[in-house]
This record gives sequence, C-alpha cells and structure tokens, in this order.
Amino acid sequence: MKILVINAGSSSIKYQLLDMTTGNDLASGIVERIGEEMGSISYKTDSKYTAEQPFPTHREGMVEVINLLTDADKGVVKEKSEIAAIGHRIVHGGELFFEPVEVDEKVLQGIRDCIPLAPLHNPGHVIGIETAMELFPGVRQVVVFDTSFHQTMEPKAYMYGVPYEYYENWGLRRYGAHGTSHKYVARETAKLLGKPLEESNIITVHLGNGASISAVKNGKCYDTSMGLTPLGGIIMGTRCGDIDPAIVGFIAERTGQSAAEVVTTLTNESGLKGICGSNDLRDIHARIEEGDEKAKLALDMACHKVRQFIGAYAFELGHVDAIVFTAGIGENDEIYRENCLSGLENFGITINKEKNNNWDRTPSFISEDDGAVKVCIIATNEELEIANDTVAVLGL
Amino acid sequence: MKILVINAGSSSIKYQLLDMTTGNDLASGIVERIGEEMGSISYKTDSKYTAEQPFPTHREGMVEVINLLTDADKGVVKEKSEIAAIGHRIVHGGELFFEPVEVDEKVLQGIRDCIPLAPLHNPGHVIGIETAMELFPGVRQVVVFDTSFHQTMEPKAYMYGVPYEYYENWGLRRYGAHGTSHKYVARETAKLLGKPLEESNIITVHLGNGASISAVKNGKCYDTSMGLTPLGGIIMGTRCGDIDPAIVGFIAERTGQSAAEVVTTLTNESGLKGICGSNDLRDIHARIEEGDEKAKLALDMACHKVRQFIGAYAFELGHVDAIVFTAGIGENDEIYRENCLSGLENFGITINKEKNNNWDRTPSFISEDDGAVKVCIIATNEELEIANDTVAVLGL
Repeated sequence: MKILVINAGSSSIKYQLLDMTTGNDLASGIVERIGEEMGSISYKTDSKYTAEQPFPTHREGMVEVINLLTDADKGVVKEKSEIAAIGHRIVHGGELFFEPVEVDEKVLQGIRDCIPLAPLHNPGHVIGIETAMELFPGVRQVVVFDTSFHQTMEPKAYMYGVPYEYYENWGLRRYGAHGTSHKYVARETAKLLGKPLEESNIITVHLGNGASISAVKNGKCYDTSMGLTPLGGIIMGTRCGDIDPAIVGFIAERTGQSAAEVVTTLTNESGLKGICGSNDLRDIHARIEEGDEKAKLALDMACHKVRQFIGAYAFELGHVDAIVFTAGIGENDEIYRENCLSGLENFGITINKEKNNNWDRTPSFISEDDGAVKVCIIATNEELEIANDTVAVLGL
Repeated sequence: MKILVINAGSSSIKYQLLDMTTGNDLASGIVERIGEEMGSISYKTDSKYTAEQPFPTHREGMVEVINLLTDADKGVVKEKSEIAAIGHRIVHGGELFFEPVEVDEKVLQGIRDCIPLAPLHNPGHVIGIETAMELFPGVRQVVVFDTSFHQTMEPKAYMYGVPYEYYENWGLRRYGAHGTSHKYVARETAKLLGKPLEESNIITVHLGNGASISAVKNGKCYDTSMGLTPLGGIIMGTRCGDIDPAIVGFIAERTGQSAAEVVTTLTNESGLKGICGSNDLRDIHARIEEGDEKAKLALDMACHKVRQFIGAYAFELGHVDAIVFTAGIGENDEIYRENCLSGLENFGITINKEKNNNWDRTPSFISEDDGAVKVCIIATNEELEIANDTVAVLGL
C-alpha cells in the first residue's frame, strides 16, 4: 500500500510517497515559489531531478508531482490510482482537533477557523487539501495536526498568566508544535525501553532549526515548550524563545518599532543568529574551535535553556524513564547533546561519550548501561507518522 | 550601634531604625503621597502612630521621620547623632555595582546612569539619598542594590537570545531582583545546614506579590528567574512572568494597544489576578474551598511554574543541598509550598506535612529527616541585611 504525504505551504508543496509495507519513501521532493514568475520542483527517488518552471497555482504544482510519480521513466507508480490515501500535515488544529481525522467539509472549515492562530500556514494547507481533492477524486484524505498530540495537556500547563478573557476571546494559550515528531519518538523510545508507552515517562527533545521539548507522562503529552506561536520555549536558530515580555516594549521604545515588528526581529534575527550571527551549527562549532567567544556563548545559552526545560519537565513528571533526542541538531550534534546533559549523574542521567559520539542512526541508548534514566537518540520521521496515522484513521 | 535603613520611592520613604546589637528594629514606618495635596506618615515602635499631613517634598517627609525618632515622648533616640550610618535600598545597579558601596558623587551618578533600567525606582532613590545627605551631614551612607547579588551570573544565564547589539547598546540582559533577600536567606540556610556557604548549593524561593527564584552555587548567584524587568520569571500576583513574546504582538493586534500598553496589562492585570480576578492568597484559598475553578487554576499555574524553575535550577546546579522558602507567600502559605514540591521524592525532595503546617517562624527544616535535599523556611529580613551591609562596608 502506498500513501502520499503532503505538506502544503502558501507557496510550496512538500510531498513524499511512502510504501507502507516497508515504511520507506519511494519518492519525495518539493514544489516551490508557486505563484511567482518562475518556480521550481525537486523530485528524489534513487536519483535526483530538479526543474525550473512556472507554477501559477498549487494545481499546476500538484499536477507536475503526479506526472513525475507516474512518469514512464522517472516514475515510481504506474498510475495515480495506486495511491491508497493521502495524509496532510497541518500546523495548527487549535482546540478543535485532538487527533488525526478524515477530511470532510466540516474538517476543512475547522482548519480555516484556526487560520488566526497560524496565519502563515493554515491557508496554504487548505489550498493543498482542496487541490488534492480535485486531482485525486475518490481518494480518501486525512489531516494530521502538529498540535493535536499536545491537546492532552492540563490547563495549568497550557494557560498563560494573562487576563483570562484573552483565552476565552482569542484562544490565547500554549498549543505546542512538532507534535507528530514528539509522538513518534515517544512511541519509539518506549519500544526501545521495552516498556508499554502508557507506563513510560519520557522527555522528548526535538532540536531542529525550530525546536521544542515535551514532557510525556504515561504516553500522553503533559507539557511542551513551544507556546502560542513558534517563537516560544527554548532558544532556537533564529528565535529567542520565552523571555520577559517587557523586553518587547523595551525594544519598541528604543527602535520606534511596533510590537509586530519587534516580534519579527525576535523570530528571524534572534536565537543563535542574534547572539553570534549564525544559526548553522557546523559554522558555530568551527568558530568555537577558533576561539570565537560569541559562537561559544550562543551554544552555551542554547544548551543552558534545553537543560533548564529538561530539569523543569523532570520535576513535573516526578519520575523519568528516558530522555530522547531527535531532529537535525538532536540527531547530529554530539557536543550539543553532551552540553545539555553533562553533570546530571545525581539525577541518574549519564552520557556514554563513546556511544554519544558514534551513533549509527538506529534507535539506541547513549547513556551508561547502569544509568537510571535512559538517554537515547531516535531519528524522527514525521512523514511516516502521518502516513501511519492516515492508514489508522481510514482503517486500511 | 543604630543604623537607619531607607527605601525611598518617587513619592514615598520607607524607613527602619535597627539596633545592631540585637538586630531588632526600634522603629519603622512609611511616608506616603509626597508631593500630593495631602500626605501621610506611619510610625511604629511598641505602639503605632499615623498622621495625615502634606509633604511637599522628600525633605519635609524625612524631617518628620527625624522628629518622630527623636521625639521626647514617642522617640527611640535622644538625638539624631545616635544614628551611626544610613543604608539605602536601591532597586537597580545595572552592571555598575557588584556589591554595596559607600555613597559619593560618583556612586550617585552611577545610580542616575541606571535610571533607564529602573525608571520608576532609581529617581526616587537619588532624591532619598540627597535628602538624607542634607539632613544628616557627616553621617556616612551606604547603598545596597537589589541587583548586585545576581552580578555573579555567567553570560549564558543572564543573556537573552536576542540581537547581541541590544545588550551592547542598551544593557538588555537579565539583572534579577530581590537580591538582598536571596543573599540573606542563602546565608541563613547555610547556617541551618551547618555547612560553609561557599560549599553550599541552595535554591532560594522568594515568593511575595513580586517573586523570584535563584540558583545559588557555592554561595554565589548562578541564575535567577527575574529578568530585564520585574515582569520576568515566574507567575506573580499581577504579573505574567516569562512567556512567548509573540503574545505581546498578538494582544496588541487585537486590542489596538501599543507594546508599552500591553506590557502594562501584563504587569498590573495578569498573574494570579489575571486568571482568577484576585491576587490575595487568602481569598484564593477560600474560593478554592468553595469549589471555584479559576481560583484553583491560578494557584495550580503559579505552583507549576515555581516547580519548573526549581527543577531547572536543580539541573543547573547538578547537586542541591537545600531549597528555602521566604517572603510573604513563601513564609505563610503551606498549601502553596506543598503544591510546589509534592511528588519529588525521586529527586530527594520531601515535605513533612506536620512541620510544613506548623512553622514557628524560626529558621527550620520542613523536609523529612532523611530527605537528601533539605527544605526549609526562613523569614527574610532585607532591612537587617542592608543594615549589616552598611556596617560591613563602613567597617563600623
């Protein structure tokens, strides 16, 4: 069985076709700059193909994806009817969606209703779904939300200490992000522990250019670092994370900017980049080697913040079975991982340097064998998780 | 020896006269509404005295304090020359002041230079010092800063993940607050532990209407929750603490307010008050008894946040000798304390309910005798700490 996973943005379509018997992807790529004078498409199977061509709307982009998937030469399926179902990644489901659901008109409206909470993402998702429905008539479609895994949080974890009516009127609360990744690696970690997920307390550390940490209690999300928007939580590549909110006013007063303009700076020009001018960890490590103090400060600050959140979540959970690192930085940066967890032997947390420095990309422990809290690395796979959810929702 | 401690605001003078042989206060009170049509003064010794009268400037207020202190009937000293020295509480010393210092013109200018960081407080402090210098000619004066205890933090703890030039240009960083209290209770906790302060790791939890938590490593401040301004850190009576800063833009967009106006709401109408309408813990506990859900949510949120910071600081310190509660809520609210620390036995943290519920106001442990991490309550005494610093700086 083959499942097509789509992540449609306002001017892009990311796609991946998965073979569900193996879990492998058969083809993947991205259509970009939809609506601009010249667009581009990439298509990767065993080999790579890219082309520049205009895509006036999402429709033309999706048609080209179908053409490539079914191409006599480059294709991986004979005809598009081989695609059993389609799963869509949706950034924001607000408080409407607790779990993946099959698309119908009511669901589409729900995604539209969440546009105020994700104005940069949900409109593109709606267009992506509508286009897929048109071009794959009769093929069932499922939506999987980045926020739904976090909907099990209690109010004490998701509410902010701001006037209560802001929550009632505008839905101002913590929603979290990367839920599909947190859910996937939590489940895989429980497998690695050999313990039922429902009896496991796991801290999931998703560190990409965007990043968040979750406290997973008995398999359910109990808390997460990302907030109302993707700006909250830990220090990221270009984002500052949670801070004293008076800082927004302090900067606005000195620059003459509006609150929205300050937030844009805190989103795009802050985090690692704000401190040392770069958010490329390879660059940062190279500069630290050369004695660059700002690069070292940026790394130290980011790891300091991750350590704080892991400590906070350990105390929320009361007992921790495992800590799992995932995503770009979490999977590939052994120095980062070590900086976050060094010196925590008193809390049962250890890092075996040999294992930490030589991870073979299979789910595995990097803690000492006798460590009370297991530490592991698991490569995240959000597309597979979306495809799995699609199969599960449709009972295929 | 008698030391006068002064905390001058823009329109008020808090004062306390301490007898340094006993550490007790001989008299204390406050002059309020200076510069308004009608002001007031309170004066407390064994008995209480209050009066309404106009105080056009701080000078008239200070003169009346001296009159009362030396009054034949109500006074506690024969003449003001019995006052050996004066200690002033100063809210903000920026990065200029690492410790208490004797006042001279350069120091006064330094306090003025920090006005942009504490525009509501430092101007009043300057007036208070100048007035005291005029009315107590020849009496040496010392300034004690709320921020100086926190100046030992490393950059990874005090820097925010925002553009670095904001720090260079405007001093945008974490400064902390309540430093005099954190320092006092940390030292008293080490005494209670019977361990040198320089070898003790202590988490100091100062919970008043304003509140902050510090990680004290080998006697020095290693991290603290309050930020650039008193709005940062944990959830307080009317303040939201650290949050996703995009929330400021989100609210501004919906209310049409400026960033500064939103920050005012987050400072005065948020925290416990924002969630349940009250920041009076007695009221909140009474409402919880009656089943009021918002009151319960407010308390749960605040304690949840304290727990997070204690966990974060425990992981920063690596090893914790003691956790100490102090200030209004920290000293008086056993339910609050228990909510913050319940279920942490795995981390060596225990609460003995009997001890927690029956604190006798002397520095004492409330943890179980065999708890690895000691938990204690110590009544803070910032005035005594300022008086002690004054004596020490002057070598009296």
